[in-house]
Amino acid sequence: MAVYTDVSFEDLEGFLSGYDIGAPLSFKGIAEGVENSNFTLQTDRGAFILTLYEKRMKAEDLPFFLGLMEHLQAHGIACPQPVRDKSGAQWSMFKGRAAAILTFLNGISLRRPGAAHCLAAGAALSGLHEAGQSFALARPNALSLDGWRELAKATAARADKVQDGLGALIGDSLAELEAKWPSGLPTGVIHADLFPDNVLFMGDRLSGLIDFYFACNDMLAYDLAVLLNSWCFESDGAYNITKAKAMIAGYRGGRALGDAEIAAMPLLMRGAALRFLLTRLYDWLNPDPGALVRAKDPREYSRKLRFHQQVKHAGEYGF
Amino acid sequence: MAVYTDVSFEDLEGFLSGYDIGAPLSFKGIAEGVENSNFTLQTDRGAFILTLYEKRMKAEDLPFFLGLMEHLQAHGIACPQPVRDKSGAQWSMFKGRAAAILTFLNGISLRRPGAAHCLAAGAALSGLHEAGQSFALARPNALSLDGWRELAKATAARADKVQDGLGALIGDSLAELEAKWPSGLPTGVIHADLFPDNVLFMGDRLSGLIDFYFACNDMLAYDLAVLLNSWCFESDGAYNITKAKAMIAGYRGGRALGDAEIAAMPLLMRGAALRFLLTRLYDWLNPDPGALVRAKDPREYSRKLRFHQQVKHAGEYGF
Repeated sequence: MAVYTDVSFEDLEGFLSGYDIGAPLSFKGIAEGVENSNFTLQTDRGAFILTLYEKRMKAEDLPFFLGLMEHLQAHGIACPQPVRDKSGAQWSMFKGRAAAILTFLNGISLRRPGAAHCLAAGAALSGLHEAGQSFALARPNALSLDGWRELAKATAARADKVQDGLGALIGDSLAELEAKWPSGLPTGVIHADLFPDNVLFMGDRLSGLIDFYFACNDMLAYDLAVLLNSWCFESDGAYNITKAKAMIAGYRGGRALGDAEIAAMPLLMRGAALRFLLTRLYDWLNPDPGALVRAKDPREYSRKLRFHQQVKHAGEYGF
Repeated sequence: MAVYTDVSFEDLEGFLSGYDIGAPLSFKGIAEGVENSNFTLQTDRGAFILTLYEKRMKAEDLPFFLGLMEHLQAHGIACPQPVRDKSGAQWSMFKGRAAAILTFLNGISLRRPGAAHCLAAGAALSGLHEAGQSFALARPNALSLDGWRELAKATAARADKVQDGLGALIGDSLAELEAKWPSGLPTGVIHADLFPDNVLFMGDRLSGLIDFYFACNDMLAYDLAVLLNSWCFESDGAYNITKAKAMIAGYRGGRALGDAEIAAMPLLMRGAALRFLLTRLYDWLNPDPGALVRAKDPREYSRKLRFHQQVKHAGEYGF
């Protein structure tokens, strides 16, 4: 969660004068989003989210993120829509930060999704992948092999303080992935962070996808690996193959998986687990005193990574 | 802000089954309230706030706070209303904490209120004082002389580390107030924390009062002193007598001030400033590592207290 930048109503009024979205009825900082400051804004014309992009977010990436949301919605994927200001811009500067107003999407994220929700999430992901094929912009994945190498270096000295053997786990895993990371698989726009937090449901119906701020171009099957990693493990560490099969079936309903993609899944699952292990470990070791969220426990992902190291072929994941 | 207790949608669903308020459409932790965990909840029947009472809040005080909000609304003071559950209860236990659902009040708090807003806030305060006269429950003010003495003791050793001379300022001020604190002035239910944060406006119209969790019984004129302290100083430390006169006129429109109350204002203003100086100083010196809000700067109130020490009579405040 977070409100890193304080925005008074008087500040807001000035900013809203550039928009044509009605008079404000309520305005509250919300406890969501690790990276940015987020506020809910209700006006007499509807509900919106105001986001001030902080820290790691680069303004030059905003046309990709905001353009992608417009593109996806135009292709039938429900997601927040940037509201253009009176000049037609998707974002502008506000309190020294890039800022945008997005439409508010109704729906609630689930903490314990069931198999039916996993099927819906898998279907939404392949829908996103298909719709993304016609998106004109591209953005490299900063959190793939090169990024992992940097994070591994930055955390190596203190990894074992978090968990015995963690440094070796990371080093060995990174060495294996450097040697064997797949190439030649189908690529396109991926969400790259489609955790249950970022999928909204109303009742059992998926109502939309949110938080596109890690979206980039990479292997599509890697995005499915991120999804399986974040939805299909139980809190006791067990991989729930019933949920996974539903998720894979949901995905395949929208996009066929090639043999090479399936064969690569054990590696892609390890890569996806290593990616979240490394970013969580880095944030755990380098807590931001100004952060208003508790860092997430990296050990959830070291356990998943160890699980994946035992997996010999994709069938064990439910393919 | 704060979300100290994590509430999943699945937790929420269980809790909502005890209420008759419709199906949830959205649910978000909000960045408000230093003491409690707050969530906005939108259902197909309306907007609500779910509050989990944490830490310092005692469950035995809830009938006073929640009953007061019902009583005030019934007497024409707009404020959040506790939604009774199917058994008729105003609150119940949820995740090990006392929890209540309140109606959501539209409106926005101002950071830089003008004289017209001050007049409206003054009028709302005397309306509250009048309406409170018929409220059956009572609660002592834990943050009056006895509480100040404890806080002064707990902060004395380190006060000067925050600001040179702060320990002496507090000690001298407390000694004066212990000797001269008024008695015999009209008492009743006071809000005790009616900062601009806790008054909502829609445009220039006051739409309601919120956050009654410091409400208690004490001298009514002390509540006006809290209001003047928190609304009528500019950020450069100047006391804005135009705003103060508007606020006092607004108050007097709803309730007459007696001569003894006016004569006591210099002391009441010092007491109100000392109260917020001490709680802020305590929180500044004892940061809660789990707190998700930044502590407020106590020096804002040491400056106000020093200002009040130069004031000889109530006329200087605009009376």
